[in-house]
Amino acid sequence: MVKTLLEVFNEVKYPVVGHGKRNVQVLKDTFDHLSGDIDSDIYGTGKVIEDFQAKIAAYLGKPSAVFFPSGTMAQQIALRQWCDEKGSRKVAYHPLCHLEIHEQDGLRELHHLEPVLLADKDRLITLEDVRQMDDDVACLLLELPQREIGGQLPAFEELEAIAAYCRDKGIKLHLDGARLYEILPYYGKSAAEVCSLFDSVYVSFYKGIGGIAGAILAGEEAFTKQSKIWKRRHGGDLISLYPYIINADQAFDERLSKMEHYYEAAVELAEMYNNCGGLTTRPVVPVSNMFHVHADMPKETFEKVLIDVYEETGIGLTGNVREAGQGSYYEVSLGDRYEGIPKDLLKQAFVRLQAKMNDK
Amino acid sequence: MVKTLLEVFNEVKYPVVGHGKRNVQVLKDTFDHLSGDIDSDIYGTGKVIEDFQAKIAAYLGKPSAVFFPSGTMAQQIALRQWCDEKGSRKVAYHPLCHLEIHEQDGLRELHHLEPVLLADKDRLITLEDVRQMDDDVACLLLELPQREIGGQLPAFEELEAIAAYCRDKGIKLHLDGARLYEILPYYGKSAAEVCSLFDSVYVSFYKGIGGIAGAILAGEEAFTKQSKIWKRRHGGDLISLYPYIINADQAFDERLSKMEHYYEAAVELAEMYNNCGGLTTRPVVPVSNMFHVHADMPKETFEKVLIDVYEETGIGLTGNVREAGQGSYYEVSLGDRYEGIPKDLLKQAFVRLQAKMNDK
Repeated sequence: MVKTLLEVFNEVKYPVVGHGKRNVQVLKDTFDHLSGDIDSDIYGTGKVIEDFQAKIAAYLGKPSAVFFPSGTMAQQIALRQWCDEKGSRKVAYHPLCHLEIHEQDGLRELHHLEPVLLADKDRLITLEDVRQMDDDVACLLLELPQREIGGQLPAFEELEAIAAYCRDKGIKLHLDGARLYEILPYYGKSAAEVCSLFDSVYVSFYKGIGGIAGAILAGEEAFTKQSKIWKRRHGGDLISLYPYIINADQAFDERLSKMEHYYEAAVELAEMYNNCGGLTTRPVVPVSNMFHVHADMPKETFEKVLIDVYEETGIGLTGNVREAGQGSYYEVSLGDRYEGIPKDLLKQAFVRLQAKMNDK
Repeated sequence: MVKTLLEVFNEVKYPVVGHGKRNVQVLKDTFDHLSGDIDSDIYGTGKVIEDFQAKIAAYLGKPSAVFFPSGTMAQQIALRQWCDEKGSRKVAYHPLCHLEIHEQDGLRELHHLEPVLLADKDRLITLEDVRQMDDDVACLLLELPQREIGGQLPAFEELEAIAAYCRDKGIKLHLDGARLYEILPYYGKSAAEVCSLFDSVYVSFYKGIGGIAGAILAGEEAFTKQSKIWKRRHGGDLISLYPYIINADQAFDERLSKMEHYYEAAVELAEMYNNCGGLTTRPVVPVSNMFHVHADMPKETFEKVLIDVYEETGIGLTGNVREAGQGSYYEVSLGDRYEGIPKDLLKQAFVRLQAKMNDK
């Protein structure tokens, strides 16, 4: 039987993207050297959860933070709270926002909110889009970087202008910061400096940070206190979240200082792609550890090309290709693995990739 | 500073209730001997979650099962689905149902359902209560055993009659089986025999089973398939739930056969309480591993009595006493710890308890 791209990718010697395999070893590495005497958190209380919440709140420059099992839960709750406060059902976000395309419409089905979609699918939300928005919108959600268009960012000055406009109009600004750490090297700002523009902030621990799962929602005390009630309602106030928390805490300490390397790796790798005829990256020059690779050939053809390259060189560039109009694309997200890739071999892989592309 | 009851309880040599401490050791015991190569589940897919779901579905005698991070999430979703199917907003349950008193009104706030409370707070729901219920109720939830009144059970024949009535009236029957395993020795039935009376079933893995967290919702294929969509909406479809699943699987295998011992321990211990003047248990003869202990003295007085007994004997009976009218009470739930308690010392503790009670 012919192997799929994912199967071949999972067997290569040098996978280029990500931190490593998502397996039980990640958990073992966290807990093997820990004392068994550490008490579990209990329904959102206890040292293990409270210390971590305080640590991340301080890092984000917010008064308070709450750990959630998922960002889906944290963000729906944030938007619901801002809507309840304003007495409006309207929130605004990008057409490719996580809430719009990955959450089975939870925001509508559970919270009965009415999203207003800003901007076109294939570009960032601009100050101009925000200015044309109705004033009865309770909250504007910005995702930095905008993942589904390759991880793009507005200029920091535009972000400041959007924040000033929203403050002036009494519209709350919420940050989908699933990949917040990853954009700090490009902006040259601290997390707290970016977050100071936002009323509420969500961050994730299993993207660039590489943890098992989990999220933080941060903001003012009154806001996060209320979010704990909603967390209970959603069924997210588990008796024990420590398997995620302790792992997230370690992964945060381990990888936060590496975000600059991941970013530089993305810039370097994107250049190799763009030098390869028939391929372009989006953005052309990455502003975080991620970008998209677009090919002007159908998914099936592109997969065959990639499989050949992986089998010839042992280099694995991606496990998943998706359709995009007449062509195809995939997401690249760089982490710990990149620095272990022999550069000569990587260059050779791109030479082979170019040759295979020319053959098609 | 004077120690609290909980502090003294946490330091005794012989805690009588529960399985053990809720600490990191529970996780270490699960994962220390496992291979790191086991792949994580990914958003509800993968061998680790699918195998466990199939195993528990078979145990419950249902076609399909879905793992959830919490019972709060699983049960709200079950009731929502039955309501949507019938086109009704009404569900019926006991006034002390978990959804009514422990979930911050999630069922109303998220799902806009309208609970109908059956029976008085201090007794079980009877067939007569069910007969008087409106036919437009979409689903009746029964909790077996009824935890908040000490863990009481209807006769199995009455349960069968309630199930037959609901089937006849087109009212779905949902089982809150957080403590299902614990009642099987008393009923003398298999889990599948009990579950055959219900259209949907929730079971927990951190009560009698002693796992870290997690729940299963089981029923027909179409029902559980839909529940995965709601799980995503609730923010419960985590990228990785394996820390809970693998632990729950081991705890299930380890403790399922011990439920009879836990039940016998409860019967034995309740008798000791009832022989102690001023104390009564509810129910008088337990029907599971749990019961409540009621004292005819105020909480503070009772706590002082208990602290004295713990300090004199090293036996710890409970860490928490609650107010109940003029008197006080606590919940007892028996597990692994009970068989390690020297019987002589336990009897001595009850002699001391009787003496202290008489002094007050």
